[in-house]
Amino acid sequence: MQLLHEAPSVTFSRSSVAAPVVGIDIGGANLKYASSGGKSFSREFAMWKHHRDLSETLVDDLSRFGKGLPIAVTMTGELADCFLDREIGVRHIVESVEQATRNTQTRYYSVTGEFFNAAQAVARIDDVAASNWHALATLVAGEVCSDAMLVDIGSTTTDIVPLSAGRVATPAKTDHDRLVEGSLVYVGCARTPVCALVNELQYQGENATVMNEWFATVDDARVVLGLEKECPGDRASADNAPRDAFHARNRLARMIGLDHRSVDDEAARTLATQIMAAARERIQHGIRKVQSLYGFAPNTTLVLSGHGGDLLPRDVIADRTVIRLDEQWGEVIARSAPAYAVARLMTAVAVRD
Amino acid sequence: MQLLHEAPSVTFSRSSVAAPVVGIDIGGANLKYASSGGKSFSREFAMWKHHRDLSETLVDDLSRFGKGLPIAVTMTGELADCFLDREIGVRHIVESVEQATRNTQTRYYSVTGEFFNAAQAVARIDDVAASNWHALATLVAGEVCSDAMLVDIGSTTTDIVPLSAGRVATPAKTDHDRLVEGSLVYVGCARTPVCALVNELQYQGENATVMNEWFATVDDARVVLGLEKECPGDRASADNAPRDAFHARNRLARMIGLDHRSVDDEAARTLATQIMAAARERIQHGIRKVQSLYGFAPNTTLVLSGHGGDLLPRDVIADRTVIRLDEQWGEVIARSAPAYAVARLMTAVAVRD
Repeated sequence: MQLLHEAPSVTFSRSSVAAPVVGIDIGGANLKYASSGGKSFSREFAMWKHHRDLSETLVDDLSRFGKGLPIAVTMTGELADCFLDREIGVRHIVESVEQATRNTQTRYYSVTGEFFNAAQAVARIDDVAASNWHALATLVAGEVCSDAMLVDIGSTTTDIVPLSAGRVATPAKTDHDRLVEGSLVYVGCARTPVCALVNELQYQGENATVMNEWFATVDDARVVLGLEKECPGDRASADNAPRDAFHARNRLARMIGLDHRSVDDEAARTLATQIMAAARERIQHGIRKVQSLYGFAPNTTLVLSGHGGDLLPRDVIADRTVIRLDEQWGEVIARSAPAYAVARLMTAVAVRD
Repeated sequence: MQLLHEAPSVTFSRSSVAAPVVGIDIGGANLKYASSGGKSFSREFAMWKHHRDLSETLVDDLSRFGKGLPIAVTMTGELADCFLDREIGVRHIVESVEQATRNTQTRYYSVTGEFFNAAQAVARIDDVAASNWHALATLVAGEVCSDAMLVDIGSTTTDIVPLSAGRVATPAKTDHDRLVEGSLVYVGCARTPVCALVNELQYQGENATVMNEWFATVDDARVVLGLEKECPGDRASADNAPRDAFHARNRLARMIGLDHRSVDDEAARTLATQIMAAARERIQHGIRKVQSLYGFAPNTTLVLSGHGGDLLPRDVIADRTVIRLDEQWGEVIARSAPAYAVARLMTAVAVRD
């Protein structure tokens, strides 16, 4: 799936006074691009399958943006298990970017808030690894809401970042530290496997334990419930069959040893509802944990990002101000928010070679 | 991995009075063969990847056994998600067997205890699907222990089958019904993903939620703990890297956002121990549930099958008689127990074309 978006002509205070920058968010399942001026592009890119094609893909995609524009990179794709470890992953990503962008200024965002050149980046692996949440949170804290919790629900994970006095408030920098404190919830709106969310599903009044196989994901639950558009041409599903309602229902049925022959639409919706509830519960747990850890008030403002907003539990929203990034920045930018953030942040810093 | 085993010269009462039969257990991840005389062979066979090669593979493998011997088939491989549904899966398996065994008598085991020819089999899909547990349990009930619980811990699942008065005591026939009653526990000693077993892992005194990715399996925990031999040439692992202690440790570390650079052998063993405990707990829960459902005494005899015996919780074994099939039948046969069972059962029935 490839998406090219042209933003409506919005003026951004900082980017309008600096030279434009192209931000790239190199994830484990997607490549997302955004210019500081508000143009964005994204594509599915399964790093664990296609990492050798990364450089070539970057060349293709960057041709959609102005030639020779400075490049700001943030990443999470180094965690893909095609890489023995994160060091090898970061090196591969940096090398691929450098190969794709000769004669162009490139900078890598660090969770310290700095930008590194390629040599510095590979010397500071753990600072440039898994940095995209920090880039987004830093821009949001500076520009959208200085004191809030940023909740970014993506396809694979949910970031819950405490923001205080215009800055990122958590000292946790790595994925591991964030898994421990609860600010990285490894549940998203698409890729999360059903067997990681529930042990049992109720069906026709009885509880069936689920098959611990990668037979279905949260995406299937959302398609069955009409929260995600059917996309029959897209086969990025657990069984490589179409992402349409029929096959999504079939995939959910497989989780309890059945298939489309016996599980009808209504039964599939019942299964999907339970799966969505389990996903929301994990996210709710994370929000409460972070809120309590940082002594935030129960009605602390939430800034919502990502395309999985329907996973935000209603209980969590009640009695709060919720600022939606897609309303603040427009849908086009919101779809590639960390890429936009890293581009915007780079326009604001003096960069020397 | 291919294994050819010649049994020691043991005499089996029934098979010695009937013509030999070759049994095939066509699973979702393995093909297992055994003759009623006690010769066995097995190979890994990822149905979801290689289903088109099934017929050809069967031809190759059957050449290890006597030409023209009658064939008894049992299966579970129809649940692989390369098949839209079980009907299509059963049809594909039956067609592949028929293509591979022209001019040979073939019969398909049904959970009703009958043997069907190919035409009957495809007309009785739900009876021949997922039948291998029933074949093994029927032979065990008739020959090993008439009143017991059979606990068969395989690579992917654990079957817990109540046996009473020499027969299979559960009325549940399908995978779904068995998932509901608890007699099919979808936890095994190799393929079960870690993210389906635990939500958190303790590491250095803190709880980290796990990444809901297919980064590691129970097999990695067993390799790290020395319960499974290292096999560097075998890459049937989550990341397609070798099944050795180094890579198994690296895979376990990935579950909590780390890698081999920071997680040493001792730390990996601590992670592995937690994973094994979670797997044992699921199996223990299943055994207790089935025991209670069928009114079995707490000290009911267990018949243990499968190569995951170390997943049988100690609490469950205490104060019971445990009969090990590998001691009863020899290791060679025990490795392909359902294939052996279906071969033996077919020698005991009159088969007409």
